[in-house]
Amino acid sequence: MRAKVWLVGAGPGDPELLTLKAVRALREAQVVMIDDLVNPAVLEHCPAAQVIAVGKRGGCRSTPQAFIQRLMLRHARQGRCVVRLKGGDPCIFGRGGEEALWLQEQGIEVELVNGITAGLAGATQCGIPLTLRGVSRGVTLVTAHTQDDSPLNWVGLAQGGTTLVVYMGVARLEEIRQGLLAAGMAATTPVAMIENASLPSQRECRSQLQRMGTDAAAFALRSPAVLVIGEVAGGVASAVLDPVVAQASA
Amino acid sequence: MRAKVWLVGAGPGDPELLTLKAVRALREAQVVMIDDLVNPAVLEHCPAAQVIAVGKRGGCRSTPQAFIQRLMLRHARQGRCVVRLKGGDPCIFGRGGEEALWLQEQGIEVELVNGITAGLAGATQCGIPLTLRGVSRGVTLVTAHTQDDSPLNWVGLAQGGTTLVVYMGVARLEEIRQGLLAAGMAATTPVAMIENASLPSQRECRSQLQRMGTDAAAFALRSPAVLVIGEVAGGVASAVLDPVVAQASA
Repeated sequence: MRAKVWLVGAGPGDPELLTLKAVRALREAQVVMIDDLVNPAVLEHCPAAQVIAVGKRGGCRSTPQAFIQRLMLRHARQGRCVVRLKGGDPCIFGRGGEEALWLQEQGIEVELVNGITAGLAGATQCGIPLTLRGVSRGVTLVTAHTQDDSPLNWVGLAQGGTTLVVYMGVARLEEIRQGLLAAGMAATTPVAMIENASLPSQRECRSQLQRMGTDAAAFALRSPAVLVIGEVAGGVASAVLDPVVAQASA
Repeated sequence: MRAKVWLVGAGPGDPELLTLKAVRALREAQVVMIDDLVNPAVLEHCPAAQVIAVGKRGGCRSTPQAFIQRLMLRHARQGRCVVRLKGGDPCIFGRGGEEALWLQEQGIEVELVNGITAGLAGATQCGIPLTLRGVSRGVTLVTAHTQDDSPLNWVGLAQGGTTLVVYMGVARLEEIRQGLLAAGMAATTPVAMIENASLPSQRECRSQLQRMGTDAAAFALRSPAVLVIGEVAGGVASAVLDPVVAQASA
């Protein structure tokens, strides 16, 4: 065990979606810094470590980013093995790239460990394949909440032909709806709004682009939630299966 | 242990990127059907299972899809616990959605287990964050190889403002290059071409959109490989860090 900072994806919530590498990092850790969106159940893999909660939910900066970074640096410089646990994957809306660069510039060894991102896990748990031959050629993950509040390029997103997964969008449903409608996306495009992806408390609200705001209000949708927008969110009908798949029982 | 088919993502290659849930599925399995792109090292978790190789690389249909499906069905109907191991994630270019639907229509219980997809793991191992505040607002995963060979919507993909990750693109580099250039993507857009993502044999070739074909040829790039196209592939410079991050040491 040498001084090092692991930036580890703890996955979407289900503790079984942790990777073996994340478990190894936790076992080696002397200090574990845990984000708000991480399921504390994963701490069973590091019973002897010092655990520090560094939650920082969107908008509410209870633990400032600069403080978290200095804390990681201080512990690493004292020769400790530090694990920073982030919800999902550290490099998908997780600031892992920035933190890794900054730590490396301070001379600290850094290792990143991928995790299952919430949009993927939530969709899978709802039976939604993010890609589907003949229906969706790919998937786009975007965040509705940004540093400078610059608008997303809705036209590009609507026309790319991929399933759209929006993170941190609960407070911006109307903006998303208007942006995609104005960009030419069909009003009846299926939408799945998934709260607490992969946890026992997961809830899903199926809707359509044109009425997703009112449906979400009636459903009392709350953060954290992901939105899956595209034909795949309408259910996979047998009709879309290609002949080879459909004929397998023939 | 009851009759059931698990459709399991084995991750990108590094056996440590398997999830705990995938390990549990393997431990319960009586029959394991393994795809070409799965690292056989993960079979250490199912020493007693019957292992069937059902490789089917793009184009070369050594094991037809319909045969694989019938095989899963037959074993499940005989009361066995079957694990179908797929590279990466079963629902990202993995046909997991189709196979799950078909099996459910035959009355078989199905459970999907997410895995780390190769594009994410390859980028992370190269130090490329797929999203980066101020640089990339999201990420789009697409496959260059499709069922009907219909062209991708390059304009939407080029203008969406997200990092582009292209799977199965080695044989179509010229088509990708021309499509993105014609759609207005800058000729000097950084590109990382990553072979054997997350394995000890991983190799990366850094290039630019305009010359990625010639660079790939000189590098002798071979499948399986992923392409990461966008500013993040050019390296994360300190200059892009936001003030809060950059000032953490102040």
